[in-house]
Amino acid sequence: MNAPAVNRQWILARRPEGAVRPSDFRYQEAPVPAPAEGEVLVRTLYFGYDASQRIWLTEDGGYMPPVQIGEPMRTMGIGQVIASRDSAYAAGDLVEGFMSWQDCVLARADGPMPLRVLPKAQYPLSWNLGIFGVSGLTAYFGSTDGLKVKPGDVVVVSAATGATGSLVGGICKALGAKTVIAVAGGADKCRWVIESAGYDAAIDYKSEDIGQRLDELCPQGVDAYFDNVGGHMLDTLLLHMAPRGRILICGAMSSGYTDVKLKGPSNYMRICTHMLTVQGILLFFYRDRLAEGAAQLARWVAEGLLHVEQHVVEGFQRAPELLPTMFTGKSPGKLLLHVADPA
Amino acid sequence: MNAPAVNRQWILARRPEGAVRPSDFRYQEAPVPAPAEGEVLVRTLYFGYDASQRIWLTEDGGYMPPVQIGEPMRTMGIGQVIASRDSAYAAGDLVEGFMSWQDCVLARADGPMPLRVLPKAQYPLSWNLGIFGVSGLTAYFGSTDGLKVKPGDVVVVSAATGATGSLVGGICKALGAKTVIAVAGGADKCRWVIESAGYDAAIDYKSEDIGQRLDELCPQGVDAYFDNVGGHMLDTLLLHMAPRGRILICGAMSSGYTDVKLKGPSNYMRICTHMLTVQGILLFFYRDRLAEGAAQLARWVAEGLLHVEQHVVEGFQRAPELLPTMFTGKSPGKLLLHVADPA
Repeated sequence: MNAPAVNRQWILARRPEGAVRPSDFRYQEAPVPAPAEGEVLVRTLYFGYDASQRIWLTEDGGYMPPVQIGEPMRTMGIGQVIASRDSAYAAGDLVEGFMSWQDCVLARADGPMPLRVLPKAQYPLSWNLGIFGVSGLTAYFGSTDGLKVKPGDVVVVSAATGATGSLVGGICKALGAKTVIAVAGGADKCRWVIESAGYDAAIDYKSEDIGQRLDELCPQGVDAYFDNVGGHMLDTLLLHMAPRGRILICGAMSSGYTDVKLKGPSNYMRICTHMLTVQGILLFFYRDRLAEGAAQLARWVAEGLLHVEQHVVEGFQRAPELLPTMFTGKSPGKLLLHVADPA
Repeated sequence: MNAPAVNRQWILARRPEGAVRPSDFRYQEAPVPAPAEGEVLVRTLYFGYDASQRIWLTEDGGYMPPVQIGEPMRTMGIGQVIASRDSAYAAGDLVEGFMSWQDCVLARADGPMPLRVLPKAQYPLSWNLGIFGVSGLTAYFGSTDGLKVKPGDVVVVSAATGATGSLVGGICKALGAKTVIAVAGGADKCRWVIESAGYDAAIDYKSEDIGQRLDELCPQGVDAYFDNVGGHMLDTLLLHMAPRGRILICGAMSSGYTDVKLKGPSNYMRICTHMLTVQGILLFFYRDRLAEGAAQLARWVAEGLLHVEQHVVEGFQRAPELLPTMFTGKSPGKLLLHVADPA
């Protein structure tokens, strides 16, 4: 694979206030860089979309340094090595990890989260950003190590059609959960999670009273809640947890991540009075166990226990316009931008 | 021991709004009741003061049914059985558990939290409400099972002069914690926790910037935070937790417990980004392990590792006036009202 003639880039033009907009980014073309000793040059093939990209745009950035104005927008991506000056990578290697919205990125093997070389596999290359990427591995470690889902559990999952949520239902059923309940927006999505994503039941937060539906569906309370949205829904779930229930804080999408300071849950004293466990998850902390997680997910896919849903959009030019749809609504499953094919 | 001629009572006269006041209670005298089959009549000897008594006065009561208007105020207490129609208790037994502000209370052995018969012991009877009661056992199970304090940990404890907090420092040192830091109000209390309660350092929340002091005292972050106060302090601690740190939600005294809905922690997404574990504690869930906890606490007292501090006030008539001092400030250690002596 050869380097392109120019390096197209989507640059952060200004720090968004409130909801992120396509106009917060600026298109430019730059020379293709040459790798220095210890660096590799990677041609990007797919960009993955994650709600946490909005966090990377806030001033204090949360858990990573924020993307600076004038820098290409950070993304999880799949690429192919086109030139290597690091013995850990060879030209032609397919790799996954932190990249940015450009045709070509430079990377190093000695960073905290180096690009991982992808195994040869029968499944689509893009799955390495979805079920075998951040989304799927977060669903896996969040359900197993975080929530410790076990046979007989009643589990609730918010943002259940998201890249992570669409896998949590099947994972929890594979772990023996008795009932897995999705919270999703709209009748179509509520139908989809049951018909395609392995959920037993769904609550439409746009048209139903979540608390009332929880009373009907799980009068004994919720054993485990996989929280992707925070806000009002977290507050409602706190009132419906079974004694000694477990909550996983995976995201707070309802906030839009416009600030790292959020409205905290008003009912948080339920943590005390019902002796709940609230656990966070950040995949960084599982970096030594990612292969173990991917192997188990692959077994469940082979056994037909997990359904993989992707929504792939074509063309580098569309990179910025897809980001706001993470918060305003999109198709079920993992959202990806296809930029180029491997050589 | 004979029953008194009349049964003095402090009755809930009206549900407090905001801070609880002595005038929310009304004194009255009633006949001494006779136990029915399966009941025991208990003469009260000590009343313990707990911040959670304020929760029992809120309409939806939190984790127990609220005290109703016209009922004697609920309290943890020590008493002596003066008449028994239940084979589990004999006249003369000293007992501890849920009682109310009266000279004589009726109790049953078949409730969810029956009175426990106290062992003959060398230590003061009143310790059964402090170190060997709710306060000490919450400190023990909160530090061990909840926070999982281990050798080398940096631990922070709020309300560190309280009945529970004044024991957590010594317990965590006994468990091998490297540094145990108290948060307390005023120079006298900050001196007391270090000189008497086994703490290594103290932060005066009334005159010092908690965040700045935490940066100085534990630049690597806090491994375990025993939270008795919630509010602003919990929000500050969230910003100073080490990755994978643990927080115990034991109380939210800063709220005054005037409502079970509180201002939740704005920085709660740190739970996600630092992969924290937030655990609640309610002693009810340890009802099968209380003897184990008390035995370990007794060993540490015998080894000189724990200091027991009590503040005992005399006289039934003073029951209501002590309750507000739980929130407005009181002496270090366990606050008790002495009502009568055993026969």
